[in-house]
Amino acid sequence: MSDTPSRTELSAIGEFGLIERLASRIELQLPSSMKGIGDDAAVIDPQGLHQVVTTDMLVEGVHFDLSYMPLKHLGYKAVVVNLSDVYAMNAEPRQVVVALAISNRFPVEAVDELYDGMLLACKHYGVDLVGGDTCSSTSGLVISITAIGAAKPGDIVYRDGAREHDLLVVSGDLGGAFMGLQVLEREKLVFKETGAQPDLEGHDYILERQLKPEARKDIIALLREMEVKPTSMIDISDGLASETIHLCRRSNTGVKLFDEKLPIDPATYQVARDFNLDPSVCALSGGEDYELLFTVAQADYDKIKGNPNLTVIGHMTHPSEGMHLVDKQGGVHPLTAQGWDAFLKKG
Amino acid sequence: MSDTPSRTELSAIGEFGLIERLASRIELQLPSSMKGIGDDAAVIDPQGLHQVVTTDMLVEGVHFDLSYMPLKHLGYKAVVVNLSDVYAMNAEPRQVVVALAISNRFPVEAVDELYDGMLLACKHYGVDLVGGDTCSSTSGLVISITAIGAAKPGDIVYRDGAREHDLLVVSGDLGGAFMGLQVLEREKLVFKETGAQPDLEGHDYILERQLKPEARKDIIALLREMEVKPTSMIDISDGLASETIHLCRRSNTGVKLFDEKLPIDPATYQVARDFNLDPSVCALSGGEDYELLFTVAQADYDKIKGNPNLTVIGHMTHPSEGMHLVDKQGGVHPLTAQGWDAFLKKG
Repeated sequence: MSDTPSRTELSAIGEFGLIERLASRIELQLPSSMKGIGDDAAVIDPQGLHQVVTTDMLVEGVHFDLSYMPLKHLGYKAVVVNLSDVYAMNAEPRQVVVALAISNRFPVEAVDELYDGMLLACKHYGVDLVGGDTCSSTSGLVISITAIGAAKPGDIVYRDGAREHDLLVVSGDLGGAFMGLQVLEREKLVFKETGAQPDLEGHDYILERQLKPEARKDIIALLREMEVKPTSMIDISDGLASETIHLCRRSNTGVKLFDEKLPIDPATYQVARDFNLDPSVCALSGGEDYELLFTVAQADYDKIKGNPNLTVIGHMTHPSEGMHLVDKQGGVHPLTAQGWDAFLKKG
Repeated sequence: MSDTPSRTELSAIGEFGLIERLASRIELQLPSSMKGIGDDAAVIDPQGLHQVVTTDMLVEGVHFDLSYMPLKHLGYKAVVVNLSDVYAMNAEPRQVVVALAISNRFPVEAVDELYDGMLLACKHYGVDLVGGDTCSSTSGLVISITAIGAAKPGDIVYRDGAREHDLLVVSGDLGGAFMGLQVLEREKLVFKETGAQPDLEGHDYILERQLKPEARKDIIALLREMEVKPTSMIDISDGLASETIHLCRRSNTGVKLFDEKLPIDPATYQVARDFNLDPSVCALSGGEDYELLFTVAQADYDKIKGNPNLTVIGHMTHPSEGMHLVDKQGGVHPLTAQGWDAFLKKG
């Protein structure tokens, strides 16, 4: 698990020791964090703002594989996936609470690494870790994080505000996290079969997309700066196709999505080809990109066009027109909601 | 797992199906719950109040045993243990979010039962279930709940406000949940060894304490009515001794706790005797009673004395005097923090 020379058993310090160890490392940064770890509950001053609340659970063997996921990265990612949901509401994340089930196969030093990653993410995004629960697990590691954010009521963006003719926009590029996972899985298999050390060279970008994703705090700031308020927004955890369908269903619209517009990084594209996968399918259904997918009124087009961080990939239509993907030859296909899981089964 | 004749596989409806199934059963009750299940995050209007946040995780095989814990009770208890932490801040719980990891050995009907219990607790305590996450688990069931409450800043009671001479008060009675667990464990063992049906007759009270505990919403209301604001407060999850030590450490006081004052229900007392256990030790270290332990200024004694729901069990002392238990013969013993786990190991 860890290369550190010392190994301290969890039982040697116990749950309360673990809590005190963690609490001693934390200094609350935000005026809204009134009370952190150490009482029955944390206390937050909303400062006149609405609060948004989201929770995500990561389960060993389902969401992560410790044979290639360093604990520090895992901690970082566990926080980021929650913050991404807060940004997707156009809100500012402020606090997280962390519940952890951990088996005694992990030493205290491993828990430290996990918290190193969580606290690094908190620092990077300006969030306070204000509370949690630590308990033992009979088998794997389970991390459950709840993130709380704040926003003016009028600033909050829901999934259901898209209207016919709105433009569908995505931040960054897609499919990288999925291709990073494919490389990691391949090298794990090679290692198992031949004992050969993983060959990850040249895959920095897609590996980072998988192992150390970032939430698009910068996009929220950019939109504010541009004075663009999306009409609807969601973050991409399951995959572009699945999230687009969510926006359409909640907003009661159809959509026309253009394959040729999908933003795919050259590194992602090349590896997809090497794996004999269609890069567009990876972008549509790969998931875990944690980009923001949103709609804007056509009137806002001039404000966003040409920005290298934003790509218009389609537009919303009347619900009677349905949800469609237009391929590079102009062929029209029904957009199907194959999320991450469904895609893996096919692979 | 369930006696219902039908069994629907989780895979048949999938995660989104499960979320929609749940969302369709929920109607938000509180004006502060602006947006529930169905977006990236729930939205809460704090209505000018501070927010308290607490999280608790329950892990199969660690915190519960489905061989004697019905899923509906488990759901109820999972919510209650979180609400208890909110009341322990002298706050009013308003919202919960639920993260669930569940293996495919559970059918959809089992998940329904679990939510039946959670929603029953929500209804009973006037709380809205506003969000969550559902994912698969490779083995057991894990339930992670975060509860959010509201309070005027000046009303919040922390663990660190106890002062020398303050009275130590506990609600209800102690040790019942622990003795209920002992009866369940004994009958499970008998069933395993002989196949005999569990003999739980006459143990209604202690079984309910273990299987369907309640959070002391009524005590918070009672204190308000009496115009008593505790100087410090905590809920009893690990055990009276352990929680008393928490109050002393955070408040920098000592304590004198009187064995003869411990409130123990006759049913608890009798079963402890039958098990050859010291009822006082069960009350001190049993845990899971979810009663409230708090301190009040001596000036408030007249307001609380004689109330059948409240028992003065000791008083806070100068920290130099240490933390002590006075036995029925007047002997003085250091108060030791044997929580639930430590106690079980000895048992």
